[in-house]
Amino acid sequence: MLYLIGLGLGDAKDITVKGLEIVRRCSRVYLEAYTSILTVGKEVLEEFYGRKLILADREEVEQEADNILKDADICDVAFLVVGDPFGATTHSDLILRATKLGISYRVIHNASIMNAVGCCGLQLYKFGETVSIVFWTDTWRPESFFDKVKKNRQNGMHTLCLLDIKVKEQSLENLIKGRKIYEPPRYMSVNQAARQLLEIVQNQRVRGEEPGEDSMNLVESHSRKAEKSEQSLLLCIARENSFEFESRQVRRLVTLVLWKGSSGFHQLQRRHSDAWRPIVRILTG
Amino acid sequence: MLYLIGLGLGDAKDITVKGLEIVRRCSRVYLEAYTSILTVGKEVLEEFYGRKLILADREEVEQEADNILKDADICDVAFLVVGDPFGATTHSDLILRATKLGISYRVIHNASIMNAVGCCGLQLYKFGETVSIVFWTDTWRPESFFDKVKKNRQNGMHTLCLLDIKVKEQSLENLIKGRKIYEPPRYMSVNQAARQLLEIVQNQRVRGEEPGEDSMNLVESHSRKAEKSEQSLLLCIARENSFEFESRQVRRLVTLVLWKGSSGFHQLQRRHSDAWRPIVRILTG
Repeated sequence: MLYLIGLGLGDAKDITVKGLEIVRRCSRVYLEAYTSILTVGKEVLEEFYGRKLILADREEVEQEADNILKDADICDVAFLVVGDPFGATTHSDLILRATKLGISYRVIHNASIMNAVGCCGLQLYKFGETVSIVFWTDTWRPESFFDKVKKNRQNGMHTLCLLDIKVKEQSLENLIKGRKIYEPPRYMSVNQAARQLLEIVQNQRVRGEEPGEDSMNLVESHSRKAEKSEQSLLLCIARENSFEFESRQVRRLVTLVLWKGSSGFHQLQRRHSDAWRPIVRILTG
Repeated sequence: MLYLIGLGLGDAKDITVKGLEIVRRCSRVYLEAYTSILTVGKEVLEEFYGRKLILADREEVEQEADNILKDADICDVAFLVVGDPFGATTHSDLILRATKLGISYRVIHNASIMNAVGCCGLQLYKFGETVSIVFWTDTWRPESFFDKVKKNRQNGMHTLCLLDIKVKEQSLENLIKGRKIYEPPRYMSVNQAARQLLEIVQNQRVRGEEPGEDSMNLVESHSRKAEKSEQSLLLCIARENSFEFESRQVRRLVTLVLWKGSSGFHQLQRRHSDAWRPIVRILTG
């Protein structure tokens, strides 16, 4: 049996009791290590689970899935994913391969940023399409995700923005030369995401493609405000349980929420005003 | 400290390790019993947690929240919610009251149907606004949620439909007479939800409000197909971990997904074709 087990968003103890029992009895336990991270490292998890974990990077999962699935028809194999196994669709492929090989599978769900973002006080119902903001390079500066932000805005919906993470990436030079040398991991900050958003608005204006008043207001006014007040962009720390980060250093993986307007803002204030004040300090700092 | 703890969607062991530790050390533990249910009852939870649970119905939470929060500034109180505490916004009020009383709180997240629905193979990113389908009465037959379904459809988004649950409701007569006699709990079936959807389309047509070709296709073609083939409405059982229900009786709480069209359908087929075949049998049966 192949088990896909969500680890939730915080630390080692955010695994479910069911998940932990399965981890402890599986023959092999893989830890998916390229779409997300926990606030604790592999060693902490290993100690708590009482099991050795095999790190599975993108290469392993996408190109050598058969290793992961080896003998899973006669023994139990666990594949651990930060958040929920279906928060990203990346892991559907593993299930498809398992099915093809006649291997049964079972999913142990857990919290994902897709639902935990509700902690910010905005209604989950009112989130439109989620977008991913990727690291720009000198030559690759995609803007298409911004259309989705605009569409959500037009439909009166908030936008959850997932920020890029680069783990075990090769430089172009190393890639070309076939050298398996990897760059240090990178995690996009909210400031960087906001800068990219602003640049897109700027670009659209320069090209004469008016980005739509609503969307401009959304990005610009919030960002401008960020410099002088706390009423600007809202972010929740994705890798921690909510409201725990007030007194801590900003962690690496964060999520950006673009809310739909002043009504959403007042709703927030009314709801969890004490909770999100420190959030903005992170952005403006 | 007030702890809001998500129980996930399955059974007693879907609580997180962190959540369980907190439950075991709190002075009082409430179980919220009106927005959702687990597949196991209160007694099973009590046995597994090793704690007595106090059932908190809507009345208790909305009108007597002060009982729940009593002494939470000097001792620990847990409030257990099926799924994630913020899947519904119902529980924001409890947090607001706590904050007003100077009581700290902490949230322990867990899986919610809002993210676990990803198990059906459709991308979570591509879900539009979630709608709730409520039980109609003879005199109250709201149709407004259908506009959201249409809007999602126009935007190429899937719709997650949450089906109504009625727990500890009074009949009109008992309500008027002030008798605290409650009706048996009711859980909307997918068939019933589909019937209401179809009736709305029918009503809109009779009134000359063309419901939009897309939306009609969505509801009607899927429902028609339901009678002759398996390519119809998709549902996931909300109160169980995914794919576990194939050989079981249909449980009470279900969720309906209206997907965005034939492309979504093919995506599903490609992804988890073996997983959702039995789902439709439930609908047509």
